[in-house]
Amino acid sequence: MATPPTPPTPPSSGLSCPVPLSHRTEITVGHGGGGRLTQELIDRVFRPAFANPALEAQHDGALLRLPDGTRLAFTTDSHVVSPLFFPGGDIGEIAVNGTVNDLCMCGARPLWLSAGFVLEEGFPIATLEKVVASMKAAAVVAGVSIVTGDTKVVERGKGDGLYVTTAGVGVIETKLTIAPASIRAGDAVILSGDIGRHGMAIMATRAGLEFESALVSDCAPLVAPVQALLQSGLEIHCLRDLTRGGLATTLVELAESSKLSIAVDAAKIPVSELVQGACEILGLDPLYVANEGRFVCLVPAAQAAEALAIIAKTAPGGPPAVIGHVDAGPAGQVTQRSVIGAERIVDRLSGEQLPRIC
Amino acid sequence: MATPPTPPTPPSSGLSCPVPLSHRTEITVGHGGGGRLTQELIDRVFRPAFANPALEAQHDGALLRLPDGTRLAFTTDSHVVSPLFFPGGDIGEIAVNGTVNDLCMCGARPLWLSAGFVLEEGFPIATLEKVVASMKAAAVVAGVSIVTGDTKVVERGKGDGLYVTTAGVGVIETKLTIAPASIRAGDAVILSGDIGRHGMAIMATRAGLEFESALVSDCAPLVAPVQALLQSGLEIHCLRDLTRGGLATTLVELAESSKLSIAVDAAKIPVSELVQGACEILGLDPLYVANEGRFVCLVPAAQAAEALAIIAKTAPGGPPAVIGHVDAGPAGQVTQRSVIGAERIVDRLSGEQLPRIC
Repeated sequence: MATPPTPPTPPSSGLSCPVPLSHRTEITVGHGGGGRLTQELIDRVFRPAFANPALEAQHDGALLRLPDGTRLAFTTDSHVVSPLFFPGGDIGEIAVNGTVNDLCMCGARPLWLSAGFVLEEGFPIATLEKVVASMKAAAVVAGVSIVTGDTKVVERGKGDGLYVTTAGVGVIETKLTIAPASIRAGDAVILSGDIGRHGMAIMATRAGLEFESALVSDCAPLVAPVQALLQSGLEIHCLRDLTRGGLATTLVELAESSKLSIAVDAAKIPVSELVQGACEILGLDPLYVANEGRFVCLVPAAQAAEALAIIAKTAPGGPPAVIGHVDAGPAGQVTQRSVIGAERIVDRLSGEQLPRIC
Repeated sequence: MATPPTPPTPPSSGLSCPVPLSHRTEITVGHGGGGRLTQELIDRVFRPAFANPALEAQHDGALLRLPDGTRLAFTTDSHVVSPLFFPGGDIGEIAVNGTVNDLCMCGARPLWLSAGFVLEEGFPIATLEKVVASMKAAAVVAGVSIVTGDTKVVERGKGDGLYVTTAGVGVIETKLTIAPASIRAGDAVILSGDIGRHGMAIMATRAGLEFESALVSDCAPLVAPVQALLQSGLEIHCLRDLTRGGLATTLVELAESSKLSIAVDAAKIPVSELVQGACEILGLDPLYVANEGRFVCLVPAAQAAEALAIIAKTAPGGPPAVIGHVDAGPAGQVTQRSVIGAERIVDRLSGEQLPRIC
C-alpha cells in the first residue's frame, strides 16, 4: 500500500487548526508541544494500546492502590530542554521539579525519584556534574531522594548532549481524589501566580533578546502549597500545573476530561510586564506559554477565599488569583472574557509554539 | 585553567585496562557499556551527589519502605538499542522486560510501569505504533500495566528515531531482603540458562552475519521463576539479571558489593553452539555478552538443588546450572576455572564491547 505524502506543518499561532494526526505519517516537532498534536498522538497511539483506568483518568500521573490499600501516585517526564542551562534553572532542576510537581498535582507527597540519562558521546563530564549537582539541590528542597538510575550513551550526532527522564513515586495521604473527574460545576479556578516566565526565559535566551537576563524561569517545587492545601481540610477537587501548552491548554484539558466548561476573566490573570513585553516582541500569547512552578487549584466557590489565602502564603510567584469558575456546559469548552468584555473560545495549543521547553 | 586533552580510548577486549575516568573530561561510548567505565561514572558523579541508602545498596533497583511499612521496589532503565527491531524482540519489548526484570531481581512483584518517549522529528508513526503494540504485549505477559507516560520530540538529527525510558514499581511481599548485602560465603551460584543470545543476536544483525536469523534474543520476563522461588520458602539471598556487561560483569559487581569472592567453573556455564560460534567469529567472550532473560540466583548451598529444580521448571532458556559458589575472600574477586583446569581472575567489562545493546 502506498503511503500518502506527509502534508506540510502549518505555522503555529497557538490557535490555527493543524493537519490532524490521522493524516500524518511522521512525528513532527509539534507532537512534543503538549498541545493538540500531543493529545492526538496520545489518543491515537498510546491510550488504545495501554488502556487502563489510571491512563484514562488523564491526569498528571497515575493514582494507584497497592494490594494493602495504600494509595500511591506514579508519574514520569522526559526532559529535552534546550539550552540545558537558562536563566533561573537548568535541565537538572526541571527534571526534578517537573516530576515532583506532577506528583503534587495528584495530591501526593513526593518521596522518591528515578533518573535515566541518555548522554551523547563527547558530552563534557564537568557539565554532567553540574546538572547532577543541580538535581541534588532540587531534590533536597523538594524533600525527595533520587534512589535509582540508569545511564546510556549514544554516538556523537545521535543525541543532543543530554536527555534526562525522571519518574517519581509519592504517597497519597488525603482521602480526597484529586483528579479531573472530581471537578464540579460551581468550582472556583485559582491560579497560583503570574504566568509565562519559564517559556519566555527560554525563548528570550534563544532569541538573544536584550532583556533575557531579567526574564527568569519560574521553575520551583510545589510541595509546600499543595501539602498546605491538603492539610487544610478544604475539599480540593483538582490541581494541575501549567507546563507545556500553558494555562490555556491546561484549562482545555480539564474542561474536556471533566466534561464541564470553564470561564476565565483575562483581567484577573497575572502576567508580569516583562513577560507581556517579551510575548509582544515574539508574537506569543502568554496564555500558551509554559510554566514550571505555577498551578491551578479547583475548589468549591465557597472555599475559594480560604484556599487563596493558603496559596498566597505558601506558593512561589504570588499573589494568586481566582481567575474563573466551572460551569455545567458545554462540555469541554473554555471561554475567556477579554479586558474589554468580549468573550472568546480558548483552544489548546496547536502545533509547537515553543519547542523543547522542558 | 586549561583542560587536559582527553586520552584516546583503548580498544576494548573486555579485559584491557582503560584510561580511568578521573583522566577523562568527556563522555565516551564506553560509559554506557555497563562495565568498568559505567561504574566509574556512577562512583564519581552519581553516587556522591545523590547519596542515600537505596543507591548505596548497588542493586538493580531501590528497595523502599512506605510510611505504613509496605515495601516497594522502584527502578528505571533508558533504552537506546540499535537497531530498534532485532531477531527475537524490539526496543518496546526490551523496555518493558528490562524494567520488569529489575523489579524481579529486587524480589518484587512488578505492578506498574511508566514510559517516557524521546522521538526524533520524522520518525514514522507506524513504527511507533509497532513499538507500542510490542510494549503492550510484553506488559500483558509480564502482568504489569503501563499507567503513565510522556512524549517529547527533538529536531531531526538530534536523536536517533526513538529512545524509551521505562520506570517500574513493584511490591515486595517476601520477608527476605534480596540484595547483594544478603550474599553469604557458602552460597551456591545458579545460572538460569544459556548465555549470550541477546548480545549476539544484535551483533550478528549489525555485522550482517549469515546465521543472524538463527540467533534470537533471549529477551523475556523473569516474573515466573522469581515468584516461584519467593513462594518456595527457600532462603534466596540475591538475584541479578545478566544485562550489559554479561555474566562476568554481574559476578564482579556482586563480589564487590558483598565484599566476598565468587569462583565459577567454565565447564558448567551453558553457551549454545550458535552463540559460541558467533562469538569466535567476532572475537568476543560470551561471558561479557549481554542477556535480557537470564539471571543468577544465590542461595545457601544446601538449598541449591531445590532452587535449581524450581528454576528449571519456570525460567526461560534452561536448563539452569550451579556454576560456582561464594567464598569469604579476597573481597570483590571473581575467579573462573577453565575447562583444562587453569584458574583466571575475571574482571568487569572494560569500555564498550557491544554499544547500544539495550
